[in-house]
Amino acid sequence: MDNSTHASLVSSSDVNGTNVYGKDGASIGSIDHLMIDKQSGKVAYAVMGFGGFLGMGEDHHPVPWSKLHYDIAKNGFVTDITEADVKGAPTRADNWQADRDWEKRTHDHYMVPHYWI
Amino acid sequence: MDNSTHASLVSSSDVNGTNVYGKDGASIGSIDHLMIDKQSGKVAYAVMGFGGFLGMGEDHHPVPWSKLHYDIAKNGFVTDITEADVKGAPTRADNWQADRDWEKRTHDHYMVPHYWI
Repeated sequence: MDNSTHASLVSSSDVNGTNVYGKDGASIGSIDHLMIDKQSGKVAYAVMGFGGFLGMGEDHHPVPWSKLHYDIAKNGFVTDITEADVKGAPTRADNWQADRDWEKRTHDHYMVPHYWI
Repeated sequence: MDNSTHASLVSSSDVNGTNVYGKDGASIGSIDHLMIDKQSGKVAYAVMGFGGFLGMGEDHHPVPWSKLHYDIAKNGFVTDITEADVKGAPTRADNWQADRDWEKRTHDHYMVPHYWI
């Protein structure tokens, strides 16, 4: 698809609940909400509910946005993150929205570029 | 502020209702919701409620995100758009979320770069 001629806009309120699929095509969870860098306007994290994927009931974890790729045909996101990735991710403190150190460790854990650079 | 060391993340659900201030510092409206380009993860528009600013009751209009600048001290956004800018903006069709032609005319009207390039 030619992204220069086709828009694909979604309301911030409608993203919530969008399915996320793993590499094998099975749903691994859904987006609860996004975290946005107010200064740049970039989406930084999708805070996902993983449900059964983690085998411990519904639980929310922030995943770097760059780990998700929108799939028009699926009307959802695909990712290559695994259960081990999520379980091994740095624990977030209460102030994680303003904790660049936690952000660095998290992005390094998921091996994706720092969105703020 | 050194953006490389200070995060400023906000939940997509909390952005709704954030105040927007004009050049003179007066509130001109607030953000109703954001429109996000799912493929790039960039915020493309803030759909704003202008209230009295437009003198015709509450009305919602999409404003290119690049017209808004976050002001930490105000805990809100500032913009140099005027009432005439908003009133003169291209009318959006029902399918504006997927209407690149409308997007081009709108960004040209507000004289900001096309976010999708």
